[in-house]
Amino acid sequence: MGKEIEIMESVYDRNEKLAQETNDMLTKKKVFAINVLGAPGTGKTTCLINIIPNLTSKSYVIEGDIESDIDTQKLKSSGIDAIQINTGGACHLDSPLIAEALNKIDLKEGILFIENIGNLVCPAEFLIGEHIKMLILDVTGGSDKPYKYPLAFEKADIILLNKEDLIEYVDFDLEMFKEAFLKLNKDVPIFLVSGKDGSGFMEVADWLEEKREKVINGSTLKE
Amino acid sequence: MGKEIEIMESVYDRNEKLAQETNDMLTKKKVFAINVLGAPGTGKTTCLINIIPNLTSKSYVIEGDIESDIDTQKLKSSGIDAIQINTGGACHLDSPLIAEALNKIDLKEGILFIENIGNLVCPAEFLIGEHIKMLILDVTGGSDKPYKYPLAFEKADIILLNKEDLIEYVDFDLEMFKEAFLKLNKDVPIFLVSGKDGSGFMEVADWLEEKREKVINGSTLKE
Repeated sequence: MGKEIEIMESVYDRNEKLAQETNDMLTKKKVFAINVLGAPGTGKTTCLINIIPNLTSKSYVIEGDIESDIDTQKLKSSGIDAIQINTGGACHLDSPLIAEALNKIDLKEGILFIENIGNLVCPAEFLIGEHIKMLILDVTGGSDKPYKYPLAFEKADIILLNKEDLIEYVDFDLEMFKEAFLKLNKDVPIFLVSGKDGSGFMEVADWLEEKREKVINGSTLKE
Repeated sequence: MGKEIEIMESVYDRNEKLAQETNDMLTKKKVFAINVLGAPGTGKTTCLINIIPNLTSKSYVIEGDIESDIDTQKLKSSGIDAIQINTGGACHLDSPLIAEALNKIDLKEGILFIENIGNLVCPAEFLIGEHIKMLILDVTGGSDKPYKYPLAFEKADIILLNKEDLIEYVDFDLEMFKEAFLKLNKDVPIFLVSGKDGSGFMEVADWLEEKREKVINGSTLKE
Protein backbone atom coordinates (compact mmCIF):
# COMPACT_ATOMS: atom_id res chain seq x y z
CA MET A 1 0.00 0.00 0.00
CA GLY A 2 2.93 2.36 0.73
CA LYS A 3 4.02 2.42 -2.87
CA GLU A 4 0.52 3.16 -4.17
CA ILE A 5 0.14 6.11 -1.85
CA GLU A 6 3.56 7.44 -2.75
CA ILE A 7 2.84 7.30 -6.48
CA MET A 8 -0.60 8.87 -6.04
CA GLU A 9 1.03 11.69 -4.10
CA SER A 10 3.56 12.25 -6.82
CA VAL A 11 0.77 12.48 -9.46
CA TYR A 12 -1.00 14.93 -7.18
CA ASP A 13 2.15 17.01 -6.59
CA ARG A 14 2.91 17.20 -10.31
CA ASN A 15 -0.63 18.47 -10.88
CA GLU A 16 -0.26 21.17 -8.22
CA LYS A 17 3.10 22.29 -9.61
CA LEU A 18 1.74 22.70 -13.14
CA ALA A 19 -1.36 24.46 -11.73
CA GLN A 20 0.93 27.02 -10.11
CA GLU A 21 2.81 27.57 -13.39
CA THR A 22 -0.47 28.00 -15.28
CA ASN A 23 -1.74 30.39 -12.64
CA ASP A 24 1.46 32.48 -12.87
CA MET A 25 1.19 32.63 -16.64
CA LEU A 26 -2.49 33.66 -16.52
CA THR A 27 -1.81 36.32 -13.87
CA LYS A 28 1.00 37.73 -15.98
CA LYS A 29 -1.40 37.99 -18.94
CA LYS A 30 -4.01 39.58 -16.62
CA VAL A 31 -6.40 36.69 -17.24
CA PHE A 32 -8.58 35.97 -14.20
CA ALA A 33 -9.34 32.23 -14.17
CA ILE A 34 -12.46 30.76 -12.57
CA ASN A 35 -12.84 27.02 -11.96
CA VAL A 36 -16.59 26.36 -12.26
CA LEU A 37 -17.73 23.39 -10.15
CA GLY A 38 -21.06 21.66 -9.66
CA ALA A 39 -22.98 18.42 -9.92
CA PRO A 40 -24.45 17.30 -13.28
CA GLY A 41 -27.56 19.23 -14.26
CA THR A 42 -27.25 22.18 -11.89
CA GLY A 43 -27.03 24.58 -14.84
CA LYS A 44 -23.34 25.47 -15.00
CA THR A 45 -23.36 26.32 -18.71
CA THR A 46 -26.66 28.21 -18.47
CA CYS A 47 -25.19 30.30 -15.66
CA LEU A 48 -22.17 31.18 -17.79
CA ILE A 49 -24.44 32.19 -20.69
CA ASN A 50 -26.23 34.54 -18.27
CA ILE A 51 -23.15 35.93 -16.50
CA ILE A 52 -20.91 36.69 -19.47
CA PRO A 53 -23.08 39.38 -21.18
CA ASN A 54 -23.08 41.25 -17.84
CA LEU A 55 -19.26 41.40 -17.65
CA THR A 56 -17.22 44.31 -18.94
CA SER A 57 -14.12 42.09 -19.30
CA LYS A 58 -13.58 40.01 -22.43
CA SER A 59 -14.54 36.42 -21.53
CA TYR A 60 -13.50 32.96 -22.62
CA VAL A 61 -14.80 29.52 -21.69
CA ILE A 62 -12.99 26.19 -21.60
CA GLU A 63 -15.76 23.63 -21.44
CA GLY A 64 -14.92 20.31 -19.80
CA ASP A 65 -16.99 17.20 -20.42
CA ILE A 66 -16.37 13.48 -20.37
CA GLU A 67 -17.88 13.29 -23.85
CA SER A 68 -19.87 15.49 -26.27
CA ASP A 69 -19.59 19.17 -27.20
CA ILE A 70 -23.22 20.11 -26.51
CA ASP A 71 -22.31 22.86 -24.06
CA THR A 72 -19.64 24.40 -26.28
CA GLN A 73 -22.17 24.59 -29.12
CA LYS A 74 -24.64 26.29 -26.72
CA LEU A 75 -22.01 28.83 -25.65
CA LYS A 76 -20.90 29.55 -29.21
CA SER A 77 -24.48 30.04 -30.37
CA SER A 78 -24.71 32.70 -27.64
CA GLY A 79 -21.68 34.43 -29.16
CA ILE A 80 -19.24 33.30 -26.46
CA ASP A 81 -15.64 32.25 -27.24
CA ALA A 82 -15.50 28.64 -26.11
CA ILE A 83 -13.40 25.55 -26.66
CA GLN A 84 -14.21 21.97 -25.67
CA ILE A 85 -12.09 19.53 -23.69
CA ASN A 86 -13.19 15.90 -23.44
CA THR A 87 -11.66 13.77 -20.73
CA GLY A 88 -12.87 10.53 -22.35
CA GLY A 89 -13.89 9.10 -18.99
CA ALA A 90 -11.97 11.00 -16.31
CA CYS A 91 -14.08 12.47 -13.53
CA HIS A 92 -12.30 15.84 -13.21
CA LEU A 93 -10.12 18.26 -15.15
CA ASP A 94 -6.42 18.42 -14.32
CA SER A 95 -3.57 20.84 -14.97
CA PRO A 96 -2.07 19.08 -18.01
CA LEU A 97 -5.45 19.17 -19.80
CA ILE A 98 -5.82 22.89 -19.10
CA ALA A 99 -2.23 23.72 -20.05
CA GLU A 100 -2.79 21.95 -23.37
CA ALA A 101 -6.09 23.75 -23.99
CA LEU A 102 -4.49 27.12 -23.23
CA ASN A 103 -1.99 26.54 -26.02
CA LYS A 104 -4.93 26.66 -28.43
CA ILE A 105 -6.37 30.02 -27.33
CA ASP A 106 -4.88 33.44 -27.91
CA LEU A 107 -5.92 34.89 -24.56
CA LYS A 108 -6.08 38.63 -24.03
CA GLU A 109 -6.69 40.38 -20.70
CA GLY A 110 -10.04 39.26 -19.34
CA ILE A 111 -11.86 36.45 -17.58
CA LEU A 112 -11.47 32.75 -18.32
CA PHE A 113 -14.17 30.39 -17.10
CA ILE A 114 -13.19 26.73 -16.94
CA GLU A 115 -16.31 24.60 -16.59
CA ASN A 116 -15.25 21.40 -14.85
CA ILE A 117 -16.82 17.93 -15.21
CA GLY A 118 -20.28 17.71 -13.61
CA ASN A 119 -19.26 16.16 -10.30
CA LEU A 120 -19.58 17.56 -6.80
CA VAL A 121 -16.72 15.44 -5.45
CA CYS A 122 -13.51 14.95 -7.45
CA PRO A 123 -13.02 18.33 -9.18
CA ALA A 124 -12.74 20.05 -5.78
CA GLU A 125 -9.54 18.07 -5.11
CA PHE A 126 -7.48 19.23 -8.08
CA LEU A 127 -6.11 22.69 -8.83
CA ILE A 128 -6.04 23.51 -12.55
CA GLY A 129 -4.49 26.99 -12.45
CA GLU A 130 -7.53 28.95 -11.28
CA HIS A 131 -7.63 32.09 -9.17
CA ILE A 132 -11.02 31.26 -7.66
CA LYS A 133 -13.57 28.46 -7.55
CA MET A 134 -17.24 29.17 -8.33
CA LEU A 135 -19.59 26.47 -7.03
CA ILE A 136 -23.03 26.07 -8.62
CA LEU A 137 -25.89 24.32 -6.82
CA ASP A 138 -29.60 24.37 -7.47
CA VAL A 139 -32.70 24.42 -5.28
CA THR A 140 -34.08 21.17 -6.74
CA GLY A 141 -31.04 19.27 -5.37
CA GLY A 142 -32.02 19.74 -1.71
CA SER A 143 -30.60 21.76 1.16
CA ASP A 144 -28.46 18.98 2.67
CA LYS A 145 -25.63 19.16 0.13
CA PRO A 146 -23.06 20.96 2.35
CA TYR A 147 -23.33 18.14 4.90
CA LYS A 148 -22.76 15.44 2.30
CA TYR A 149 -20.18 17.07 0.03
CA PRO A 150 -18.24 19.36 2.37
CA LEU A 151 -14.99 19.75 0.41
CA ALA A 152 -16.54 21.63 -2.52
CA PHE A 153 -18.16 24.05 -0.08
CA GLU A 154 -14.93 24.51 1.88
CA LYS A 155 -13.01 25.39 -1.26
CA ALA A 156 -15.60 27.65 -2.91
CA ASP A 157 -14.94 31.40 -3.23
CA ILE A 158 -18.46 32.12 -4.47
CA ILE A 159 -21.63 30.01 -4.47
CA LEU A 160 -24.51 30.31 -6.93
CA LEU A 161 -27.83 28.75 -6.03
CA ASN A 162 -29.59 28.29 -9.36
CA LYS A 163 -33.17 27.50 -10.43
CA GLU A 164 -34.60 29.93 -7.89
CA ASP A 165 -37.73 30.06 -10.10
CA LEU A 166 -38.51 26.49 -8.92
CA ILE A 167 -38.14 27.18 -5.18
CA GLU A 168 -41.89 27.30 -4.55
CA TYR A 169 -42.36 23.79 -6.00
CA VAL A 170 -39.66 22.00 -3.99
CA ASP A 171 -38.76 21.47 -0.33
CA PHE A 172 -35.66 23.61 -0.10
CA ASP A 173 -34.68 24.99 3.29
CA LEU A 174 -32.51 28.03 2.56
CA GLU A 175 -31.71 28.61 6.23
CA MET A 176 -30.50 25.02 6.73
CA PHE A 177 -28.43 25.32 3.56
CA LYS A 178 -26.82 28.63 4.59
CA GLU A 179 -26.17 27.48 8.14
CA ALA A 180 -24.46 24.36 6.82
CA PHE A 181 -22.11 25.95 4.33
CA LEU A 182 -21.28 28.94 6.51
CA LYS A 183 -19.94 26.47 9.10
CA LEU A 184 -17.57 25.13 6.43
CA ASN A 185 -16.66 28.45 4.86
CA LYS A 186 -17.78 31.49 6.77
CA ASP A 187 -16.82 34.20 4.29
CA VAL A 188 -18.24 32.79 1.08
CA PRO A 189 -20.93 34.89 -0.63
CA ILE A 190 -24.04 33.22 -2.04
CA PHE A 191 -26.13 34.47 -4.95
CA LEU A 192 -29.62 33.21 -5.78
CA VAL A 193 -30.00 33.08 -9.55
CA SER A 194 -32.33 31.71 -12.19
CA GLY A 195 -31.01 30.53 -15.52
CA LYS A 196 -34.61 30.48 -16.72
CA ASP A 197 -35.57 34.12 -16.08
CA GLY A 198 -32.04 35.56 -15.87
CA SER A 199 -32.43 37.02 -12.38
CA GLY A 200 -29.43 37.55 -10.10
CA PHE A 201 -26.66 37.35 -12.69
CA MET A 202 -25.86 41.06 -12.82
CA GLU A 203 -24.88 40.91 -9.15
CA VAL A 204 -22.71 37.85 -9.82
CA ALA A 205 -20.98 39.62 -12.70
CA ASP A 206 -20.29 42.70 -10.51
CA TRP A 207 -18.82 40.50 -7.78
CA LEU A 208 -16.58 38.70 -10.31
CA GLU A 209 -15.31 41.96 -11.82
CA GLU A 210 -14.45 43.30 -8.37
CA LYS A 211 -12.70 40.08 -7.43
CA ARG A 212 -10.79 40.12 -10.71
CA GLU A 213 -9.49 43.61 -9.91
CA LYS A 214 -8.30 42.55 -6.46
CA VAL A 215 -6.79 39.23 -7.46
CA ILE A 216 -5.01 40.28 -10.62
CA ASN A 217 -3.28 43.07 -8.70
CA GLY A 218 -1.24 40.79 -6.43
CA SER A 219 -2.47 37.34 -7.32
CA THR A 220 -1.79 34.13 -5.44
CA LEU A 221 -2.88 30.65 -6.34
CA LYS A 222 -6.18 29.67 -4.70
CA GLU A 223 -5.44 27.34 -1.77
CA MET B 1 3.81 6.12 -16.08
CA GLY B 2 3.87 2.34 -16.63
CA LYS B 3 4.16 1.62 -12.95
CA GLU B 4 1.26 3.92 -12.04
CA ILE B 5 -1.02 2.22 -14.53
CA GLU B 6 0.03 -1.24 -13.34
CA ILE B 7 -0.65 -0.42 -9.71
CA MET B 8 -4.00 1.19 -10.52
CA GLU B 9 -4.96 -1.96 -12.43
CA SER B 10 -4.04 -4.13 -9.50
CA VAL B 11 -6.23 -2.02 -7.16
CA TYR B 12 -9.02 -2.34 -9.70
CA ASP B 13 -8.57 -6.11 -10.08
CA ARG B 14 -8.61 -6.66 -6.33
CA ASN B 15 -11.87 -4.72 -6.15
CA GLU B 16 -13.46 -6.84 -8.89
CA LYS B 17 -12.36 -10.09 -7.24
CA LEU B 18 -13.85 -9.15 -3.90
CA ALA B 19 -17.03 -7.93 -5.66
CA GLN B 20 -17.41 -11.39 -7.17
CA GLU B 21 -16.96 -13.05 -3.77
CA THR B 22 -19.53 -10.70 -2.21
CA ASN B 23 -21.93 -11.37 -5.06
CA ASP B 24 -21.54 -15.14 -4.64
CA MET B 25 -22.20 -14.85 -0.90
CA LEU B 26 -25.29 -12.70 -1.43
CA THR B 27 -26.66 -15.01 -4.10
CA LYS B 28 -26.19 -18.00 -1.80
CA LYS B 29 -28.17 -16.17 0.90
CA LYS B 30 -30.82 -15.25 -1.72
CA VAL B 31 -30.17 -11.57 -1.21
CA PHE B 32 -30.69 -9.57 -4.42
CA ALA B 33 -28.29 -6.60 -4.35
CA ILE B 34 -28.96 -3.33 -6.18
CA ASN B 35 -26.26 -0.69 -6.66
CA VAL B 36 -28.14 2.63 -6.68
CA LEU B 37 -26.37 5.30 -8.75
CA GLY B 38 -27.08 8.93 -9.47
CA ALA B 39 -25.82 12.50 -9.26
CA PRO B 40 -26.19 14.48 -6.01
CA GLY B 41 -29.72 15.69 -5.41
CA THR B 42 -31.59 13.49 -7.88
CA GLY B 43 -33.59 11.93 -5.01
CA LYS B 44 -31.96 8.52 -4.55
CA THR B 45 -32.98 8.16 -0.90
CA THR B 46 -36.50 9.48 -1.54
CA CYS B 47 -36.92 6.92 -4.29
CA LEU B 48 -35.89 4.11 -1.91
CA ILE B 49 -38.37 5.35 0.70
CA ASN B 50 -41.08 5.14 -1.98
CA ILE B 51 -40.05 1.80 -3.51
CA ILE B 52 -39.51 -0.28 -0.38
CA PRO B 53 -43.11 -0.24 1.01
CA ASN B 54 -44.24 -1.58 -2.40
CA LEU B 55 -41.93 -4.62 -2.25
CA THR B 56 -43.01 -7.98 -0.89
CA SER B 57 -39.38 -8.95 -0.16
CA LYS B 58 -37.73 -7.92 3.11
CA SER B 59 -35.48 -4.93 2.28
CA TYR B 60 -32.26 -3.48 3.63
CA VAL B 61 -30.33 -0.34 2.72
CA ILE B 62 -26.62 0.37 2.95
CA GLU B 63 -26.37 4.13 2.66
CA GLY B 64 -23.13 5.52 1.24
CA ASP B 65 -22.10 9.13 1.80
CA ILE B 66 -18.84 10.99 1.99
CA GLU B 67 -19.95 12.45 5.32
CA SER B 68 -23.14 12.69 7.45
CA ASP B 69 -25.88 10.18 8.23
CA ILE B 70 -28.83 12.35 7.17
CA ASP B 71 -30.13 9.79 4.68
CA THR B 72 -29.86 6.85 7.08
CA GLN B 73 -31.87 8.80 9.65
CA LYS B 74 -34.48 9.53 6.96
CA LEU B 75 -34.71 5.84 6.02
CA LYS B 76 -34.92 4.69 9.64
CA SER B 77 -37.64 7.18 10.43
CA SER B 78 -39.59 5.57 7.57
CA GLY B 79 -39.17 2.19 9.29
CA ILE B 80 -36.50 0.91 6.87
CA ASP B 81 -33.51 -1.17 8.05
CA ALA B 82 -30.51 0.95 7.09
CA ILE B 83 -26.87 1.33 7.98
CA GLN B 84 -24.52 4.16 7.09
CA ILE B 85 -21.13 4.01 5.42
CA ASN B 86 -19.00 7.15 5.24
CA THR B 87 -16.12 7.20 2.78
CA GLY B 88 -14.55 10.26 4.42
CA GLY B 89 -13.78 11.81 1.05
CA ALA B 90 -13.76 9.00 -1.50
CA CYS B 91 -15.96 9.57 -4.54
CA HIS B 92 -17.41 6.05 -4.85
CA LEU B 93 -18.09 2.92 -2.82
CA ASP B 94 -15.81 -0.07 -3.30
CA SER B 95 -15.94 -3.78 -2.50
CA PRO B 96 -13.92 -3.67 0.75
CA LEU B 97 -16.29 -1.06 2.21
CA ILE B 98 -19.33 -3.17 1.31
CA ALA B 99 -17.79 -6.42 2.56
CA GLU B 100 -17.09 -4.71 5.88
CA ALA B 101 -20.62 -3.29 6.12
CA LEU B 102 -22.14 -6.69 5.35
CA ASN B 103 -20.39 -8.13 8.40
CA LYS B 104 -22.55 -5.83 10.50
CA ILE B 105 -25.95 -6.89 9.11
CA ASP B 106 -27.70 -10.20 9.68
CA LEU B 107 -29.16 -10.46 6.18
CA LYS B 108 -32.10 -12.74 5.48
CA GLU B 109 -33.51 -13.55 2.03
CA GLY B 110 -34.63 -10.31 0.43
CA ILE B 111 -33.45 -7.19 -1.39
CA LEU B 112 -30.42 -5.11 -0.46
CA PHE B 113 -30.17 -1.57 -1.83
CA ILE B 114 -26.73 -0.02 -1.72
CA GLU B 115 -27.00 3.73 -2.26
CA ASN B 116 -23.73 4.86 -3.76
CA ILE B 117 -22.06 8.29 -3.38
CA GLY B 118 -23.92 11.02 -5.29
CA ASN B 119 -21.77 11.08 -8.41
CA LEU B 120 -22.72 10.28 -12.00
CA VAL B 121 -19.15 9.35 -12.97
CA CYS B 122 -16.94 7.28 -10.66
CA PRO B 123 -19.41 4.83 -9.04
CA ALA B 124 -20.23 3.38 -12.47
CA GLU B 125 -16.63 2.14 -12.74
CA PHE B 126 -16.51 -0.05 -9.64
CA LEU B 127 -18.38 -3.27 -8.93
CA ILE B 128 -19.32 -3.68 -5.27
CA GLY B 129 -21.03 -7.08 -5.37
CA GLU B 130 -24.34 -6.04 -6.90
CA HIS B 131 -26.64 -8.06 -9.15
CA ILE B 132 -27.97 -4.98 -10.96
CA LYS B 133 -27.42 -1.25 -11.17
CA MET B 134 -30.34 1.17 -10.78
CA LEU B 135 -29.62 4.64 -12.17
CA ILE B 136 -31.63 7.61 -10.90
CA LEU B 137 -31.92 10.85 -12.88
CA ASP B 138 -34.35 13.71 -12.58
CA VAL B 139 -36.13 15.98 -15.05
CA THR B 140 -34.63 19.18 -13.59
CA GLY B 141 -31.14 17.98 -14.58
CA GLY B 142 -31.75 18.26 -18.32
CA SER B 143 -32.16 15.77 -21.14
CA ASP B 144 -28.52 15.81 -22.30
CA LYS B 145 -27.10 13.62 -19.51
CA PRO B 146 -26.68 10.40 -21.57
CA TYR B 147 -24.43 12.29 -24.00
CA LYS B 148 -22.23 13.68 -21.24
CA TYR B 149 -22.07 10.73 -18.82
CA PRO B 150 -22.40 7.68 -21.07
CA LEU B 151 -20.84 5.03 -18.82
CA ALA B 152 -23.54 5.16 -16.13
CA PHE B 153 -26.20 4.76 -18.84
CA GLU B 154 -24.33 1.90 -20.51
CA LYS B 155 -24.10 -0.02 -17.25
CA ALA B 156 -27.63 0.63 -15.94
CA ASP B 157 -30.13 -2.24 -15.73
CA ILE B 158 -33.02 0.07 -14.86
CA ILE B 159 -33.39 3.86 -15.07
CA LEU B 160 -35.67 5.98 -12.89
CA LEU B 161 -36.48 9.51 -14.04
CA ASN B 162 -37.53 11.30 -10.88
CA LYS B 163 -39.29 14.62 -10.11
CA GLU B 164 -41.82 14.07 -12.87
CA ASP B 165 -44.10 16.49 -10.97
CA LEU B 166 -41.73 19.31 -12.07
CA ILE B 167 -41.68 18.42 -15.78
CA GLU B 168 -44.07 21.22 -16.75
CA TYR B 169 -41.79 23.87 -15.20
CA VAL B 170 -38.52 22.83 -16.86
CA ASP B 171 -37.20 22.32 -20.39
CA PHE B 172 -36.88 18.56 -20.43
CA ASP B 173 -37.01 16.79 -23.79
CA LEU B 174 -38.07 13.22 -22.97
CA GLU B 175 -37.67 12.07 -26.58
CA MET B 176 -34.09 13.39 -26.80
CA PHE B 177 -33.31 11.73 -23.47
CA LYS B 178 -34.76 8.35 -24.49
CA GLU B 179 -33.13 8.41 -27.91
CA ALA B 180 -29.77 9.13 -26.30
CA PHE B 181 -29.74 6.42 -23.67
CA LEU B 182 -31.32 3.78 -25.90
CA LYS B 183 -28.34 4.21 -28.24
CA LEU B 184 -26.06 3.33 -25.32
CA ASN B 185 -28.19 0.59 -23.80
CA LYS B 186 -31.05 -0.55 -25.95
CA ASP B 187 -32.77 -2.90 -23.51
CA VAL B 188 -32.87 -0.78 -20.38
CA PRO B 189 -36.35 0.05 -19.05
CA ILE B 190 -37.16 3.57 -17.85
CA PHE B 191 -39.71 4.52 -15.21
CA LEU B 192 -41.02 8.04 -14.65
CA VAL B 193 -41.52 8.59 -10.94
CA SER B 194 -42.18 11.37 -8.47
CA GLY B 195 -40.74 11.25 -4.97
CA LYS B 196 -43.08 14.11 -4.12
CA ASP B 197 -46.44 12.52 -5.00
CA GLY B 198 -45.30 8.87 -4.95
CA SER B 199 -46.35 8.09 -8.51
CA GLY B 200 -44.64 5.34 -10.52
CA PHE B 201 -43.00 3.43 -7.69
CA MET B 202 -45.37 0.47 -7.64
CA GLU B 203 -44.29 -0.36 -11.19
CA VAL B 204 -40.62 -0.06 -10.20
CA ALA B 205 -41.19 -2.40 -7.23
CA ASP B 206 -42.90 -4.97 -9.48
CA TRP B 207 -40.02 -4.83 -11.97
CA LEU B 208 -37.47 -5.30 -9.17
CA GLU B 209 -39.33 -8.28 -7.67
CA GLU B 210 -39.51 -9.96 -11.10
CA LYS B 211 -35.83 -9.30 -11.72
CA ARG B 212 -34.95 -10.66 -8.27
CA GLU B 213 -36.77 -13.90 -9.11
CA LYS B 214 -34.87 -14.29 -12.38
CA VAL B 215 -31.45 -13.31 -11.10
CA ILE B 216 -31.45 -15.21 -7.82
CA ASN B 217 -32.32 -18.42 -9.67
CA GLY B 218 -29.08 -18.63 -11.67
CA SER B 219 -27.26 -15.45 -10.74
CA THR B 220 -24.19 -14.00 -12.42
CA LEU B 221 -22.26 -10.92 -11.46
CA LYS B 222 -23.38 -7.83 -13.34
CA GLU B 223 -20.83 -7.03 -16.07
